[in-house]
Amino acid sequence: MKSKRVAVIGASGYSGEELVGLLLRHPHAELTAVTSRQYTGQTLAQVFPKFAGHPLSRTLRFSEPKTEVLARQADVVFLALPHGVAAEYAVPLLEAGCVVIDLSADFRLKSAERYREFYAHDHPAPELLKKAVYGLPEIYREQIKKALLVASPGCYPTGILLPLIPLLKAGLVKATGIIANALSGVSGAGRKVEPDYLFCECHDSARPYGVPKHRHLSEIEEQLSFAAGGPVVIQFTPHLIPIHRGILTTLYLAPEKHFSTEAEMKSLGEEIAAVYARAYGKEPFVRLLDGPALPDTKNIVGTNVCEIAWRLDRRTGRLVVMSAEDNLLKGASGQAVQSLNLICGWPETAGLI
Amino acid sequence: MKSKRVAVIGASGYSGEELVGLLLRHPHAELTAVTSRQYTGQTLAQVFPKFAGHPLSRTLRFSEPKTEVLARQADVVFLALPHGVAAEYAVPLLEAGCVVIDLSADFRLKSAERYREFYAHDHPAPELLKKAVYGLPEIYREQIKKALLVASPGCYPTGILLPLIPLLKAGLVKATGIIANALSGVSGAGRKVEPDYLFCECHDSARPYGVPKHRHLSEIEEQLSFAAGGPVVIQFTPHLIPIHRGILTTLYLAPEKHFSTEAEMKSLGEEIAAVYARAYGKEPFVRLLDGPALPDTKNIVGTNVCEIAWRLDRRTGRLVVMSAEDNLLKGASGQAVQSLNLICGWPETAGLI
Amino acid sequence: MKSKRVAVIGASGYSGEELVGLLLRHPHAELTAVTSRQYTGQTLAQVFPKFAGHPLSRTLRFSEPKTEVLARQADVVFLALPHGVAAEYAVPLLEAGCVVIDLSADFRLKSAERYREFYAHDHPAPELLKKAVYGLPEIYREQIKKALLVASPGCYPTGILLPLIPLLKAGLVKATGIIANALSGVSGAGRKVEPDYLFCECHDSARPYGVPKHRHLSEIEEQLSFAAGGPVVIQFTPHLIPIHRGILTTLYLAPEKHFSTEAEMKSLGEEIAAVYARAYGKEPFVRLLDGPALPDTKNIVGTNVCEIAWRLDRRTGRLVVMSAEDNLLKGASGQAVQSLNLICGWPETAGLI
Amino acid sequence: MKSKRVAVIGASGYSGEELVGLLLRHPHAELTAVTSRQYTGQTLAQVFPKFAGHPLSRTLRFSEPKTEVLARQADVVFLALPHGVAAEYAVPLLEAGCVVIDLSADFRLKSAERYREFYAHDHPAPELLKKAVYGLPEIYREQIKKALLVASPGCYPTGILLPLIPLLKAGLVKATGIIANALSGVSGAGRKVEPDYLFCECHDSARPYGVPKHRHLSEIEEQLSFAAGGPVVIQFTPHLIPIHRGILTTLYLAPEKHFSTEAEMKSLGEEIAAVYARAYGKEPFVRLLDGPALPDTKNIVGTNVCEIAWRLDRRTGRLVVMSAEDNLLKGASGQAVQSLNLICGWPETAGLI
Repeated sequence: MKSKRVAVIGASGYSGEELVGLLLRHPHAELTAVTSRQYTGQTLAQVFPKFAGHPLSRTLRFSEPKTEVLARQADVVFLALPHGVAAEYAVPLLEAGCVVIDLSADFRLKSAERYREFYAHDHPAPELLKKAVYGLPEIYREQIKKALLVASPGCYPTGILLPLIPLLKAGLVKATGIIANALSGVSGAGRKVEPDYLFCECHDSARPYGVPKHRHLSEIEEQLSFAAGGPVVIQFTPHLIPIHRGILTTLYLAPEKHFSTEAEMKSLGEEIAAVYARAYGKEPFVRLLDGPALPDTKNIVGTNVCEIAWRLDRRTGRLVVMSAEDNLLKGASGQAVQSLNLICGWPETAGLI
Repeated sequence: MKSKRVAVIGASGYSGEELVGLLLRHPHAELTAVTSRQYTGQTLAQVFPKFAGHPLSRTLRFSEPKTEVLARQADVVFLALPHGVAAEYAVPLLEAGCVVIDLSADFRLKSAERYREFYAHDHPAPELLKKAVYGLPEIYREQIKKALLVASPGCYPTGILLPLIPLLKAGLVKATGIIANALSGVSGAGRKVEPDYLFCECHDSARPYGVPKHRHLSEIEEQLSFAAGGPVVIQFTPHLIPIHRGILTTLYLAPEKHFSTEAEMKSLGEEIAAVYARAYGKEPFVRLLDGPALPDTKNIVGTNVCEIAWRLDRRTGRLVVMSAEDNLLKGASGQAVQSLNLICGWPETAGLI
Repeated sequence: MKSKRVAVIGASGYSGEELVGLLLRHPHAELTAVTSRQYTGQTLAQVFPKFAGHPLSRTLRFSEPKTEVLARQADVVFLALPHGVAAEYAVPLLEAGCVVIDLSADFRLKSAERYREFYAHDHPAPELLKKAVYGLPEIYREQIKKALLVASPGCYPTGILLPLIPLLKAGLVKATGIIANALSGVSGAGRKVEPDYLFCECHDSARPYGVPKHRHLSEIEEQLSFAAGGPVVIQFTPHLIPIHRGILTTLYLAPEKHFSTEAEMKSLGEEIAAVYARAYGKEPFVRLLDGPALPDTKNIVGTNVCEIAWRLDRRTGRLVVMSAEDNLLKGASGQAVQSLNLICGWPETAGLI
Repeated sequence: MKSKRVAVIGASGYSGEELVGLLLRHPHAELTAVTSRQYTGQTLAQVFPKFAGHPLSRTLRFSEPKTEVLARQADVVFLALPHGVAAEYAVPLLEAGCVVIDLSADFRLKSAERYREFYAHDHPAPELLKKAVYGLPEIYREQIKKALLVASPGCYPTGILLPLIPLLKAGLVKATGIIANALSGVSGAGRKVEPDYLFCECHDSARPYGVPKHRHLSEIEEQLSFAAGGPVVIQFTPHLIPIHRGILTTLYLAPEKHFSTEAEMKSLGEEIAAVYARAYGKEPFVRLLDGPALPDTKNIVGTNVCEIAWRLDRRTGRLVVMSAEDNLLKGASGQAVQSLNLICGWPETAGLI
């Protein structure tokens, strides 16, 4: 298989670090550059001792993020940068002929207006919003294969969109009244050195935050609208819990059909199972749970898998869908590598199992 | 103040242990007996080294749970026993003239029929269901003062009922479509020696369980029905998260009034604030959070306090209410001591702050 | 009992916060001032929601740390400040007639020379070093009662000195070759907003640090020298482990007597037990463990107790002594309140059990 | 490369589960059988959802551990069984021509007498003790390549032996007075359903156990004696800390040479560095830390690496050596796969990086 040269800009955050780990072990990608202002000049092994077993980690040094240099060093460039910073790197890299896979939120929206509503300033490169492909391979696989700019989804959106999109597309659940209650491990906040993320502030702590309007709602609702064929507004409550990695999402949905009898519930259940089987039965990174099993973050941490289970509740007439994923893998870097594999024509699972 | 003799049956579980700790430090209660089949003959200090600082812990020994002996030793008897076991102790103790405060679910329902539906067998002493008082002091203070049998609420019910009852009574929110999403620390499962509660199975784990029909729904819905003046069916999803103590509950509610303008939202918000202020403004163990603060388990662990905050969401038309409490204190033993204080005519906060 | 007015300078760190909590609940101390540059003007309840149940927390506001004002507001002033900063407050407060209880390391050494060796600069008020009393009540009770300046010991020193001093004084163990291996919860580092103390950096982490020469060695060795009657140099290795509070110390000691037979071991064991019983048998805050019990941080967290257990090892000829304490209580604020109680003539356990 | 058929007996404990995970991903090993009385008949995917991504996990079912069947199914059989049980499987499997890699302690000692001293009963197959090769590849690589029975070392021994053996062989440190202070994650206890290992008993807990004579001392001291050329008795104190995986060991050693001057210390340091570089400079699974870095469990969890760092302390004349490893990988299953690779003539790192 033909290898490609890849670079990571912003390789010292949690997502960047995870991405570097994946690329070091990747059978076809050749990691040629990693950038970090803070660590410029140090080797990967010096900054991240856990990578020291990879020979490359002892020679590859962090460099300054200069796009003209990077464009000569790499065919594909990952941007693992804070929101708002990624755009200024994407433009020159694309112009120089690189493929760009962006892990920030900068290119995830199609609508520049919606961007302004949620981010409170104009988008710096609105013409690119149209060209960017939303990097959720289970939904946009064919588009990703041909993409020059991939906007890789965030962790909360992934855990909500994967379970919801097939149900909305099939018209099984109402597009109104959707509630998403999400629990996130602390690495979801990134490597932020702030009091809120100190060990002693998180260790015995379970707490909601960003209630009621979280920024990620913008991309979640836009994608749900595409699936539902009309505007979707959801209730989303993120919580921080004391795990390192992992997101557990519980979705409360209203099926279109009533199911007050045992028979109606059985029939609706079969429809749901069929929709999910069709959507994800052959997906390597979506695991539909059978029997009494429910999603559990410990079963997906360290993997690129999103677990999904669901229950119909005859007492309330609702469908409860639950998902679990590793926020740093399927919710960030693993998913970005999935896109890389698609773009390069490699097996989609390369470097991911 | 006149002291009373108190006993604890089943003092070796997590709730029992916490209760013993509270009673050892209580200024008016005199702990005269603790029972545990497993530890019979050992002193409190031997079984729970952390109590060794209390002189009584070195002389008081665990005994067999014999009701005729206990009835002579104590004026008030706490039952910290598994569900289904408490009833057989309550009957003879009440007959012998003791006041009984039961921490199990055995007497929490008024309807023997509902009991059968959720517990799959007939109630062993249905005539007592009527006499029992639901031990939520903020709601049933006057009844508790005169009670002979208190059914002290569980941890999930407390975290749901305290925020919800005032809103339902005031007619501010609809009694339909209520969703309660709860996160519990592992001690909520009791001192169960089962694989699911091993450190390695819980430490990196966030997981829902008991979906969609949890036993505690029976008492939650019955109490909500009393507040709403009609039947209430709610959606309740408990999750286990890796904290020792604490419950964080997020409630999704539909206000009766629409609020699409800023002015309508402000007006509705004032109504909600007024209802809560009236209900809990002077309560020592309910903390209404102001400003940007949201409930956080770390702020209530080790206290008998239930924190409450709320947000109106103009985008969805919903009211989101959040609460946090220590499942072993306000959700179990602290609340039971609150009832003890009321029954004995002591200050309600005695031994609790 | 006569109450005293007390103030806390630097009340927003972990030790300061804990101290404020103890003083709010103290039956005789009257908390009149708390200072924090960062929080000036805010009430205690606003900064620390968990104190909101204490009426005083809603009226007492953080102020700027001005010694001339504080000297009028308080009889006793606690300094919960970083090392090196405390001295500049102590001098004017003492001159103004306040009693000062300092939780920093500034006055813990008797020797200004030793101070310079470990802290790399001259002591700012060397004349006070002689006047300061080392605030370990179990060892210096009588001196503390009359002290005007108390240098309250740190968490590592307390966990090492309490088990060691009686053995050295009794001549039971050699003063050479002592090893102290200590495990500390993350709050031991204080509320430092640094990458090393982020949740994600601590959660799965056990690591030594400050090897081989930690600053606290200076006060540990000075105090051990007083007990041994000659210079003592020890090996001390602190480790950080993912608990919030608590220190577990394992000491490796060489008994003066050989014990190769069962009988010799028994006899030596009886001597050790007698020495400890004499030293601590009646101490309210030292718990000598019997039988198979070994110290465990979970049994002392939230208490002012130091647990001690020991084992003779016939195979190696060594005595292994283990201790556990809460670094924020017996290792900091609880111990400081013990000194307060002694100085004020209150029961030593007031506000601490 | 020629593949081999491998089986795992006792595949449902923590080590067994980890081993199965490694073998599923192994490029040359073909997993043909897994046994577990408890799970007989269920697929790997059913029992361990996290393996569900491997196609084999959906077809391979747990079977009863019958040696005659297993001998036909596999060329190499791993025993991941409790101590004392492994021997009865090893004998018939060896007779049937299988290579056996035993993760228990049953064949780790050369001396049947020492076995009796520590395990309190006669060894069931003493003739095999001579034939078994101690499976520490960095020390016994050549012997392992030809072994029919490998006794794979435990987690505590690995963390002590790897840092110590080169120093003892080189005569740099004394064989007397060695102290090993070890901190273990809870998975080190295996999947034991006992109160001591419940989440609520471990979460805020740091505690020593098995003081002063732990069973693993027998193999540690035997191996150290081989390295030192004479009997070695060490002081070993294991502690349980609230991490899932990982062991951190701190060793206190006395160098043979004095080093009271800066120059002597520098010279001795160079000798130590040279000894370690010679022993491990090219080892793929031993990482010698440079500069200020110290071992940290979070940097080795999930890898087969043992980190080592050391410091000379001129104040005490001691050498402090620290190591960190993942108890389930380098301390158990990873190390066993290293032996498998050696025996089968595959690259030693196959399936391990």
